[in-house]
Amino acid sequence: MIKDSKQLREDLNSVLEQQPLFQGVPETLYDPIRYVMGLGGKRIRPVLALMACQLFKGNTDAALLPALGLEVFHNFTLLHDDVMDKADMRRGKPTVHAKWNPNVAILSGDAMFALACRLICQAPASCQAAVLEAFNDLAIGVCEGQQYDMDFETRDDVSMEEYMEMIRLKTAVLIAGALKVGALLPGAPVKEIELLYEYGIKVGLAFQLQDDLLDLYADEAKLGKKLGGDIRENKKTYLYIKAMGLLDEVDGIALDQYFKAPVPGNLFDGLAKVKAVKALFEKVDVKSHCEREIGKLFTEAGQILERLSASSAVDPEAMSALRAFSSELVGREL
Amino acid sequence: MIKDSKQLREDLNSVLEQQPLFQGVPETLYDPIRYVMGLGGKRIRPVLALMACQLFKGNTDAALLPALGLEVFHNFTLLHDDVMDKADMRRGKPTVHAKWNPNVAILSGDAMFALACRLICQAPASCQAAVLEAFNDLAIGVCEGQQYDMDFETRDDVSMEEYMEMIRLKTAVLIAGALKVGALLPGAPVKEIELLYEYGIKVGLAFQLQDDLLDLYADEAKLGKKLGGDIRENKKTYLYIKAMGLLDEVDGIALDQYFKAPVPGNLFDGLAKVKAVKALFEKVDVKSHCEREIGKLFTEAGQILERLSASSAVDPEAMSALRAFSSELVGREL
Repeated sequence: MIKDSKQLREDLNSVLEQQPLFQGVPETLYDPIRYVMGLGGKRIRPVLALMACQLFKGNTDAALLPALGLEVFHNFTLLHDDVMDKADMRRGKPTVHAKWNPNVAILSGDAMFALACRLICQAPASCQAAVLEAFNDLAIGVCEGQQYDMDFETRDDVSMEEYMEMIRLKTAVLIAGALKVGALLPGAPVKEIELLYEYGIKVGLAFQLQDDLLDLYADEAKLGKKLGGDIRENKKTYLYIKAMGLLDEVDGIALDQYFKAPVPGNLFDGLAKVKAVKALFEKVDVKSHCEREIGKLFTEAGQILERLSASSAVDPEAMSALRAFSSELVGREL
Repeated sequence: MIKDSKQLREDLNSVLEQQPLFQGVPETLYDPIRYVMGLGGKRIRPVLALMACQLFKGNTDAALLPALGLEVFHNFTLLHDDVMDKADMRRGKPTVHAKWNPNVAILSGDAMFALACRLICQAPASCQAAVLEAFNDLAIGVCEGQQYDMDFETRDDVSMEEYMEMIRLKTAVLIAGALKVGALLPGAPVKEIELLYEYGIKVGLAFQLQDDLLDLYADEAKLGKKLGGDIRENKKTYLYIKAMGLLDEVDGIALDQYFKAPVPGNLFDGLAKVKAVKALFEKVDVKSHCEREIGKLFTEAGQILERLSASSAVDPEAMSALRAFSSELVGREL
């Protein structure tokens, strides 16, 4: 029986709630872990892994623990990113280092990485080595991407190519890796796994560009934080890099100056800056450029799924579920 | 051919130098990793793993990569511990967060954890699942131990039992786990692996108590940092807990007061405090108590090796090498 994203998310959440791995001592280590894992979210990466599993006719129940490992890993990266970015809010709630302290956030994160490994290792013996290799690949990729992201903060010559490579590593490799892990579990053919991985990269890039847009154009209540956080923090996203390439010299200098201003200590400051930068972005309509790029990536992703659909290893109903979930992901409301 | 610790360390260091995993980009991520791995040290944990491997007649060359993974993991924990403890020096050199910054230290540490996993996964397929389970156990144990250690900083009622449990998790589980990984590689019998693990716990506890002693009584030049760091930082080690149990009320209150004083910003301050606390420790001769405890643990460890020697799975020459290395470890000069 093929499940949609909602059913898979429910399966994951009930496995998560009963998970004895998160019930250890000392509580000072495990409380923050349960807090982070309980903050909710769409469970995108493990849902994608489970969708990949059923795409190749696997039993998703047997894939729940490795899939959960991907979610624990993802939340570990968010936890440490928030420490490094000094971000005090996530999903409308205080982050771990804000609620406890930075040391707790560092160490709980480390323990989450270890717990993620343990969950990933619950893959059946027949594919354990391949699953671990995929997991190690994505884990190292995410670290490399995060480092590029930090490096870019102090550079003012980041090209669009470099930016796309950074988000490929930081975001897309984890999404593609989750699909790969899910496909390895029921023993999908190598060629199909490669296609699915490529699809994951396209969707992951589109997803991150959508995230760049949402940061400025979302419904503030749904975003769970103030709009324009990237601008406040001088984050050079697609919007900034594209605008820098399109603006005339005078406006380019103005934009550059805004992104060299000190980051306000209080993230709720800086409204005037957000407005001014947004006006510069709109002068050259970077929003449309970004939307076109997202559309292009999403079309390419769809073409890969077309090719995959021709494989006899693929379940057509599961393919429909994957398509529906991808549209949901990339077509998030602005 | 059985190798001694020096030969095994040389083997490890040459595999480390040629290791392509540490040559990735961005360099801002991999430079700190190479720096940490190049700081030297005795490579105790991977040497123990290789000694366990040859103890059960395994080929140590085939065990080098998983063993190196244990060293990378250990160095990752030191890196993050130094961030959390704000320790600016290690092995006579600036720590990563002091040389670069805390974000670099957090992220390079995360990447080292991922690289450690990748190296551990180089175990042969026949024992990969068991090796990974042992690795996950030790990784989670170390995190739990580190959290207890942090919790104890703000408590003044830590019992000796709690302290021993903390160092079991933080130090001994990694040493015992390294031996277990090494023994799993050539497929040692279950019973023998259990004994070797127990031996590792005893040696690990003795090693940590020796470390507590060395912090105050070592040759300063060999230690690579000022003596009495634990006292300066109000770390409640064996010496403090034992002294609190033995001192009379007046001296106990004095010791307690010293350990409630703010930690000097500069770790090279606080000489008067170190002298005063050392005098209190010597009033009840905690040094002898600690040495006796180390002797007891080491004797028990030796008895376990006696039992192991009776097994036909064990190579007698490799057993001698392990004995020699253990004496070296626990009998480090004061």
